[in-house]
Amino acid sequence: MNSIKVLENKSIADVPYFKAMGAPCGLKGGNKNDLCVVYSEKPCTAAGTFTTNKVKAAPVLLNMEHIKSKNIYAITANSGNANACTGDDGYKKASIMAETTAKYLSIKPEEVLVASTGVIGVPLPINNVVSGIKKVFSLFPNSSGEEAIKGIMTTDTIQKKICIEFTLDGKKVTIGAIAKGSGMIHPNMATMLSFVGTDANISKEMLNKALKESVKDSYNMISVDRDTSTNDMVLVLANGTANNKLIDTESTDYETFKKALHYVNVEISKMIAKDGEGATKLIESTVFGACSLKNAKIAAKSIITSNLVKTAIFGSDANWGRIICALGYSGADLDPHKIDIYFSNADKKIQTCSKGVSLTFDENTAKEILDGEKVNIEVNLNDGDFSATAWGCDLTYDYVKINGSYRS
Amino acid sequence: MNSIKVLENKSIADVPYFKAMGAPCGLKGGNKNDLCVVYSEKPCTAAGTFTTNKVKAAPVLLNMEHIKSKNIYAITANSGNANACTGDDGYKKASIMAETTAKYLSIKPEEVLVASTGVIGVPLPINNVVSGIKKVFSLFPNSSGEEAIKGIMTTDTIQKKICIEFTLDGKKVTIGAIAKGSGMIHPNMATMLSFVGTDANISKEMLNKALKESVKDSYNMISVDRDTSTNDMVLVLANGTANNKLIDTESTDYETFKKALHYVNVEISKMIAKDGEGATKLIESTVFGACSLKNAKIAAKSIITSNLVKTAIFGSDANWGRIICALGYSGADLDPHKIDIYFSNADKKIQTCSKGVSLTFDENTAKEILDGEKVNIEVNLNDGDFSATAWGCDLTYDYVKINGSYRS
Repeated sequence: MNSIKVLENKSIADVPYFKAMGAPCGLKGGNKNDLCVVYSEKPCTAAGTFTTNKVKAAPVLLNMEHIKSKNIYAITANSGNANACTGDDGYKKASIMAETTAKYLSIKPEEVLVASTGVIGVPLPINNVVSGIKKVFSLFPNSSGEEAIKGIMTTDTIQKKICIEFTLDGKKVTIGAIAKGSGMIHPNMATMLSFVGTDANISKEMLNKALKESVKDSYNMISVDRDTSTNDMVLVLANGTANNKLIDTESTDYETFKKALHYVNVEISKMIAKDGEGATKLIESTVFGACSLKNAKIAAKSIITSNLVKTAIFGSDANWGRIICALGYSGADLDPHKIDIYFSNADKKIQTCSKGVSLTFDENTAKEILDGEKVNIEVNLNDGDFSATAWGCDLTYDYVKINGSYRS
Repeated sequence: MNSIKVLENKSIADVPYFKAMGAPCGLKGGNKNDLCVVYSEKPCTAAGTFTTNKVKAAPVLLNMEHIKSKNIYAITANSGNANACTGDDGYKKASIMAETTAKYLSIKPEEVLVASTGVIGVPLPINNVVSGIKKVFSLFPNSSGEEAIKGIMTTDTIQKKICIEFTLDGKKVTIGAIAKGSGMIHPNMATMLSFVGTDANISKEMLNKALKESVKDSYNMISVDRDTSTNDMVLVLANGTANNKLIDTESTDYETFKKALHYVNVEISKMIAKDGEGATKLIESTVFGACSLKNAKIAAKSIITSNLVKTAIFGSDANWGRIICALGYSGADLDPHKIDIYFSNADKKIQTCSKGVSLTFDENTAKEILDGEKVNIEVNLNDGDFSATAWGCDLTYDYVKINGSYRS
């Protein structure tokens, strides 16, 4: 991946022909941004993955129709209200979000995608949203990833954005993204809100394929609280202005593009896990030596979803017994008598368990590793050649504080 | 269930011919009891269910053999050390626990069951355990359920015990139990430590059948933190001294006994859920109108295991959106557009959602219900005739506090 160059502090707002902007419209109170519009001046092919929760928010249901359009130009999203469990009225309001945006861009409503995030089951104040869209369009053609991200943040504490450059068919290609996500994070075939834009020239079919393949090993491998949201979605828009030869088969160019897209998705996923509600640490759990990929994934994810592992990491307690316990109940096919467990950071590594049995280890080194901002848990199942990585965060007092009074 | 009489403040120590006692042996430090022995002066038939975690503690592995014995007389258990992930050495030490106990009772080692609870992956200080067993036998024939329970408590804050009387074949029959469990609680076909004794006269086969059937709807329907322990077990010993006609078929007497046993198991399960680590409230989630029993159970359990539901209950926040979200990702077969949701306590009940869409409800009544020690969540899926109940607890600052430094 040497060919990928990260452009510091940039986002989807900096991808050729893309613009992004945010504004306040009164959904979150105060003068906080709670609306954002991202659009491309050129038509885009688009791909999306959506929550597998059977309870799907209105914007998810609407997008599942709109995503079929040949061209997509824009994404309009609000925070402060999820527009979920709001019935026919909610669906109508999601449609109004698309119609209003389409009017300003002189395009068809079905060429706009929409998203919402916030409290479930409260009617969406659509007048606020409509006036917010108006406000954002009055600010264009200025483009600010930062203002746009603020428009979709809820309990997020850091802005999740990335922009990379790489070469495809001799042409410079850019991929940029913005995302939000901090609680109710346990994606399954889809995830919170992540909007990715690129100037790559790629067919809808191949864009869709690249997204689906990437999501499995990025968004679907993170968890904050095991709660899969009703509003999750990842949207990718490609406007083709990089003028690379159209990618419409599984060519070398497709592989290059997929790698670059996956890089973006993994980085965004890690940002979301690290900014989990109340979190102080990113936990990266890698399971090696599994007898199948499926087993490796189940095992890696079981570790980062265990409340007991998460609280132990919060307390810098090298309580590896909780890790082997989480492996044991994960449902993964494994032999407890073959399991090796390690804690590590960029510099140091200690082994706490060999073949399922405790080892003596240096508690000071363990503490040093566990006190860091990123804690790696490595597990070797010694049972095959497959591996997988999952990302999560510690469980802290602040998680309880944030979620004990989310509505109020 | 009118025929069941609860004997206040009694336990397995008060079942005819049973004795129970506890003592300190230095595993937990201070002068806290950390060892207990329960035995019956008469031989018992025994049944047990054990953790489904693939990582099974040494006492679980040993019991899976000993439980096959025709007669069981005693259970010896320690707290402060789980004797899990301790390899061959751990198994040998579990055997020594049984052998030492057998010596004092002049019985065979395989007529003793053993149990351990505490930190995983630390070698069991067997000399302490052996001297603890000696100390307990020096205190017999005194019998104290309280002292015995103290010997198996870890982060538990309340003593879990029950004793009931009922009539079988014209004879008075007693069932008593003691249990521990507060964290790492998410039983699956088995559970934490629960020791049940009865003077009923019942065959091993029927005792086993009654236990298996009861466990599905009692211990297996509670969760504190979705972590299934390596040491879970429920053991039932029946010494037959009530002299009722031997229950060896699925007779009316069998049904009466099973109902009584189930009553004990449900009460103990609720005590464990209510005393979940850091918990301030018991959550009872009942799902009606499911299209199958399996779906009802999956749905009920998904609600009480959601961290977001648990923190909302802690904060007395009627955030029912998290309940419908938990139903949506549960995997249960359901139609989001048919779901009704209610909060209730013994006196009051409010509906927050009808056919999947929000209702206006009185926030003051909601707060009153949610401020109580027991919060009921009732869900009607309006999709069939099956129902199930699950029990859990709220997620609080103290859960994080307790588990951020369990080893230290």
